[in-house]
Amino acid sequence: MRAAVYYGPNKVEIADVPEPQVGPGQVKVKVGFNGICGTDLHEYYAGPIFIPTEPHALTGQQMPLVLGHEFSGTVTEVGKGVTGTSVGDRVAIEPIYRCGHCAPCVAGNYNICQQIGFHGLMSDGGMAEYTVVPADMVHQLPDNVSLELGALVEPMSVAYHAATLGDVRPGDTAMVFGAGPIGIGLWFALRGKGLDDVLVVEPSPTRRAAVEALGAKTLDPTVVDVPEYVRDATDGRGADAVYDAAGVQPSVETALACVGARKPMVSVAIYEKPLETPLLNLVMNESRIQGSLCYTSADCEAVIALMAEGKYDPTGWVSAIALDSVVEDGFEALHAGTKMKVLVDPSQ
Amino acid sequence: MRAAVYYGPNKVEIADVPEPQVGPGQVKVKVGFNGICGTDLHEYYAGPIFIPTEPHALTGQQMPLVLGHEFSGTVTEVGKGVTGTSVGDRVAIEPIYRCGHCAPCVAGNYNICQQIGFHGLMSDGGMAEYTVVPADMVHQLPDNVSLELGALVEPMSVAYHAATLGDVRPGDTAMVFGAGPIGIGLWFALRGKGLDDVLVVEPSPTRRAAVEALGAKTLDPTVVDVPEYVRDATDGRGADAVYDAAGVQPSVETALACVGARKPMVSVAIYEKPLETPLLNLVMNESRIQGSLCYTSADCEAVIALMAEGKYDPTGWVSAIALDSVVEDGFEALHAGTKMKVLVDPSQ
Ligand SMILES: [Zn+2]
Ligand SMILES: [Zn+2]
Ligand SMILES: [Zn+2]
Ligand SMILES: [Zn+2]
Repeated sequence: MRAAVYYGPNKVEIADVPEPQVGPGQVKVKVGFNGICGTDLHEYYAGPIFIPTEPHALTGQQMPLVLGHEFSGTVTEVGKGVTGTSVGDRVAIEPIYRCGHCAPCVAGNYNICQQIGFHGLMSDGGMAEYTVVPADMVHQLPDNVSLELGALVEPMSVAYHAATLGDVRPGDTAMVFGAGPIGIGLWFALRGKGLDDVLVVEPSPTRRAAVEALGAKTLDPTVVDVPEYVRDATDGRGADAVYDAAGVQPSVETALACVGARKPMVSVAIYEKPLETPLLNLVMNESRIQGSLCYTSADCEAVIALMAEGKYDPTGWVSAIALDSVVEDGFEALHAGTKMKVLVDPSQ
Repeated sequence: MRAAVYYGPNKVEIADVPEPQVGPGQVKVKVGFNGICGTDLHEYYAGPIFIPTEPHALTGQQMPLVLGHEFSGTVTEVGKGVTGTSVGDRVAIEPIYRCGHCAPCVAGNYNICQQIGFHGLMSDGGMAEYTVVPADMVHQLPDNVSLELGALVEPMSVAYHAATLGDVRPGDTAMVFGAGPIGIGLWFALRGKGLDDVLVVEPSPTRRAAVEALGAKTLDPTVVDVPEYVRDATDGRGADAVYDAAGVQPSVETALACVGARKPMVSVAIYEKPLETPLLNLVMNESRIQGSLCYTSADCEAVIALMAEGKYDPTGWVSAIALDSVVEDGFEALHAGTKMKVLVDPSQ
């Protein structure tokens, strides 16, 4: 079968590899779509970072590996002992491997497992015609949720998990900093949680236009005094929750100037280095910064349920490409900023 | 009467001023002891910062003012309409003026009132033989709590409030960064909350010795790898709560490397400028930074109750001086670091 194989930095090739064999407790999936995420880009341009160069503790696999951890597909084979999943099921994959015995795992927070691994980073993933996953990675897709949306379950779950940590309720005012895929996912998640008042702060006109087309209210921080705007809009209270999905100094600074008393800024960005953070803002109104990482199965199920209700829309920010053009139309286009979210279609 | 009057930076003088008159709803207090705090030092060396130079919205007062917001005393007169307080009562003062109608006030969090004021910064305070306060600022002291301890109720309430925001319970491992008066207050508060395992991290040998003499376990961050020590001591879990009462870059960095998954770093420091903060630590284990400011009456009552149980000890870190020597033995000694906490005795 054809697959996008990672051999090292700047070296991803479409190779002909053997079809994976299904073992006990596993499920074989014909991949529908597989999204490219920022982590993949980092691996492509600056890796290997997470991709193991010696056998991984949980998967036993190492480079070279088939990329792809955000995917949907159709079950074509089930291994011994698998129940609840059948051939023909349309599924989204929750690609987390966890150790099961570290303190976070025991507490049910396997999203922060100390040995966390991902199918498609620590094992052969979804940028291939077929992949084999442990049966517990599978989430059923309702009939009205497309395989295209199914491939978005993973990144949308990252955002949904973060949205939940903001402790919001209908009627609240929330702000999202950064309108990349996670920022857009936060907007969908917060709307899905019943919030009408969600402001998206984004300096890029292209990204603003994309999220506006979905129905979002936006602010351009290069022309609007964002903290003043929000104070005015909330009778001086500030936002009930702010989300940083941008990960840069100006977003953190502005977000901390917008958050209300005893309210959170949720960080769902990968900060490449320590930032100058005005911690005094936190002290003066007893607000907090809450980190958010990945998701658990409850988040994936919540996202799928909202997708079935029609709350997620890929129009205008998601595009599909053929497997063969993953480097040019995928990595390079994303790196250049000409695309926002790319799904690879291995059937093409 | 004699009082320490603030006329501006480097200008605090012992002046002869009229005794304040008690009005309706007010209480006149013969001051027992009045503590000097970091805010007073800032006002002395770099003020006026909080001290108003035009009539304050809540108190109507402005410079020059009698300093002193951390004090205890004996009630000598009660104004019309005051109930629950009588002449002869020994009291500690909770010196907060609040607006009563901003969002935090309405939510009961008047410690972060948008117009917060302090008796002794925005009105004539406790570095005087007498002062007059609104009756609701008064907390009764049990017979076995000395006026010396009573003057510590205010700063100890700052620490107790922060301790509570760390969401700790008996059996938890907590860490306190910085063994100044607030750090020591955190140690007492956490012990008072039933924690046996409280580590105090402090580079200064003098301060370490002071808190060790009270019974604390300490770590010297200049010789111990603090995050490694804590990981070893907690089976890799990290601390259940860490408290930053130091407010400097190394303490924040180290504290964030010590905090466990989904646990808080509580900030109870006044950060003079934005710090380089490794927010990625928060994301990777979903921990948080929680700001803490001041206290409310519940904190003061909790501290007084613990004082009555003998849980606070001023030995070795608190010293009393006469009002006349407030500049030399107070401000200058604190500024030079030769004393940790100074109580002014206006009767001397
Ligand atoms: Zn990803
Ligand atoms: Zn684990
Ligand atoms: Zn103070
Ligand atoms: Zn208020």
